[in-house]
Amino acid sequence: MIPQTYIDMLGAKSVIRSLSEWAAARGQEIGYENVFDYSLGNPSVPCPPHFTARMIELLQTEQPVALHGYSPSLGIAPVRQAVAESLNRRFGMQYGPEHIFMTSGAAGALAHALRCVCRPGQEVLVPAPFFPEYKPYIEGAGLTMRVVPPRPADFQIDLEALDAAIGENTAAVLINTPNNPSGAVYTEATMRALADLLTAASARVGRHIFLISDEPYREILFGGRQIVYPARFYADTLTCYSFSKSLSLPGERIGYLAACPDCEQAGQIVPVCGQISRGTGHNCPPSLIQLAVADCLDETSDLSVYERNMELIFAELKRLGFQVVRPDGTFYIFPQSLEPDAVAFCRKATRYDLVLVPGDSFGCPGHFRMAYCIETEKVRRSFAALERFVKEEYGG
Amino acid sequence: MIPQTYIDMLGAKSVIRSLSEWAAARGQEIGYENVFDYSLGNPSVPCPPHFTARMIELLQTEQPVALHGYSPSLGIAPVRQAVAESLNRRFGMQYGPEHIFMTSGAAGALAHALRCVCRPGQEVLVPAPFFPEYKPYIEGAGLTMRVVPPRPADFQIDLEALDAAIGENTAAVLINTPNNPSGAVYTEATMRALADLLTAASARVGRHIFLISDEPYREILFGGRQIVYPARFYADTLTCYSFSKSLSLPGERIGYLAACPDCEQAGQIVPVCGQISRGTGHNCPPSLIQLAVADCLDETSDLSVYERNMELIFAELKRLGFQVVRPDGTFYIFPQSLEPDAVAFCRKATRYDLVLVPGDSFGCPGHFRMAYCIETEKVRRSFAALERFVKEEYGG
Repeated sequence: MIPQTYIDMLGAKSVIRSLSEWAAARGQEIGYENVFDYSLGNPSVPCPPHFTARMIELLQTEQPVALHGYSPSLGIAPVRQAVAESLNRRFGMQYGPEHIFMTSGAAGALAHALRCVCRPGQEVLVPAPFFPEYKPYIEGAGLTMRVVPPRPADFQIDLEALDAAIGENTAAVLINTPNNPSGAVYTEATMRALADLLTAASARVGRHIFLISDEPYREILFGGRQIVYPARFYADTLTCYSFSKSLSLPGERIGYLAACPDCEQAGQIVPVCGQISRGTGHNCPPSLIQLAVADCLDETSDLSVYERNMELIFAELKRLGFQVVRPDGTFYIFPQSLEPDAVAFCRKATRYDLVLVPGDSFGCPGHFRMAYCIETEKVRRSFAALERFVKEEYGG
Repeated sequence: MIPQTYIDMLGAKSVIRSLSEWAAARGQEIGYENVFDYSLGNPSVPCPPHFTARMIELLQTEQPVALHGYSPSLGIAPVRQAVAESLNRRFGMQYGPEHIFMTSGAAGALAHALRCVCRPGQEVLVPAPFFPEYKPYIEGAGLTMRVVPPRPADFQIDLEALDAAIGENTAAVLINTPNNPSGAVYTEATMRALADLLTAASARVGRHIFLISDEPYREILFGGRQIVYPARFYADTLTCYSFSKSLSLPGERIGYLAACPDCEQAGQIVPVCGQISRGTGHNCPPSLIQLAVADCLDETSDLSVYERNMELIFAELKRLGFQVVRPDGTFYIFPQSLEPDAVAFCRKATRYDLVLVPGDSFGCPGHFRMAYCIETEKVRRSFAALERFVKEEYGG
């Protein structure tokens, strides 16, 4: 009775989940503070106090019937207006509220973007390395995911490989910058070249190939880097955003889809998203949370711990002889494993209570991901274990 | 580029939405207090003060990183436990937390239920009258909706018609009790007969036909009626619930799916729901709201205004000569229109600033719905307009 697809998905237990369960169980044995768990990408810093204060203020002062009432299906109008204005102010865009669709996090935004600009049976190209959930997101929309090989030297997009992969059946390219798991931030040069490539490819196939840009890590940038906003470079862009990381609110499921005002069928994208919701049971993110984030659009949590941790880990990995690209953002780093089989490498690491995630499910075997959204003190303590692991297992 | 299905949906503007837009525009002209808007099913009473207090307490006392952290994909464990215990206590069920899946309202629950126990291409039977959104919900899951004709004498299920409609391709029956739009509450006798019918039909087709029971109005009952809980009667039941109406929280998108412990593949239903989410971008209802409702499971808003309004409207409709079934719950009433064409009837009503919704999209032409979740004072004021409408248009 239950469709076999789902039963099969259930059987294919994700490596990240298995590792994180192992970490929890090991924590029961030796104390979780002694398990160096680099498996999960959960923000480790609190939301801005202003968000909490605004939530309490709304609860204390607004009439409950209005406050907790249905959101219009495209999002609360002044919230959409505020999001548009914030994006225009920060990135020199020309969004109106009619280009903004409020969603349950980036997952909700991607679910709508994929259904809106792709037809079932078409292909979505995803440059590796990529967030593993893209596969069920894309397949759940009746589409096929096609992986574009990574460029491990710097984890920018391999544009030649991307261009070669575009065909008659390509509907969209899905990118994630700053990138999970590599920590790479696509440069202006990459974005310009990507835009040129997609413009030429669209002309070639006689259709607008869309860029779906997943940007939950947008504000987590290192070394004073400025945000490179993809929709500034290519008009046919749907921007998918989540406040999960910038405001440390992953559980509150709040984000948006922004349709570039100059994209093909721009006026229909957001209304169509409202129709897509009816089929998927989406029906808007929570009203109260929409109202509260609208007051915090240009703010972030104190994200400095992520850069501090990155500096420490990057230096230590280099010192131990790892091949590793220095992240420009996010809270991930993605070094080469010390043996070609990253799964075996990560399995051995658990002997030292180190929880590392193999790169295979990110489309990049021979690498492993460390999520360093943990206390800096723990990062420091993990280095003894890391050194022992490398020396004892690989004679490093 | 945008799939034509969605463009078509966009063109087919819903009657309810058009009417509610007309009501808003007319309100601009003559003051909204003078528009007798019976179009929208939005709760008109505040949430229990305990809910607000609990939200503020959580925001003031919990660590933000934990409070706003990711919910496990099936829901927060103690919340699922609390929901199971509440259902067991109230309805004599035997749910464990493993049978509860937290969702973004009833829409989220239905989206999962339909994908979980039906395979694309199969048929879902829906007794009329029914909530019009069932059609996009069902079709969005790749299924076909088949309407079972109504039984207008009492709006219980026409069991003979239902039995005749069940065929090789029937995967599930979707019911809604208390019913939107009729206000009928399926009796114990109806539920027993339905269970017998589905048991026999399942044997006949050699598969378990599931009952998907949509129960957002469960607690809005009149005349001291007790809740008739469908899953008590038929094991293969998935219960879909929303706190939107009982706690007046429609905008906060919180509900659950409960899989009857004795249903077919009971152990897999909830884990599979977690897999379905990955394809639809659902990813759990907001953590904070999950935690707050878990503290209010056996409570409701003060729902008495709905019964008071029903009594007034029912008496007035009878006095004016309408054929109407007395509602046993919800905040809807569903009389026969005074001409066979309910659309024409409702159009004429707007001349008197009365906003009534034709029954056609509920699968029941010749009837109209009034949603009386409005102030009692306004209900009383509407009667002069209603009487003028009936007398002037129909000489009643």
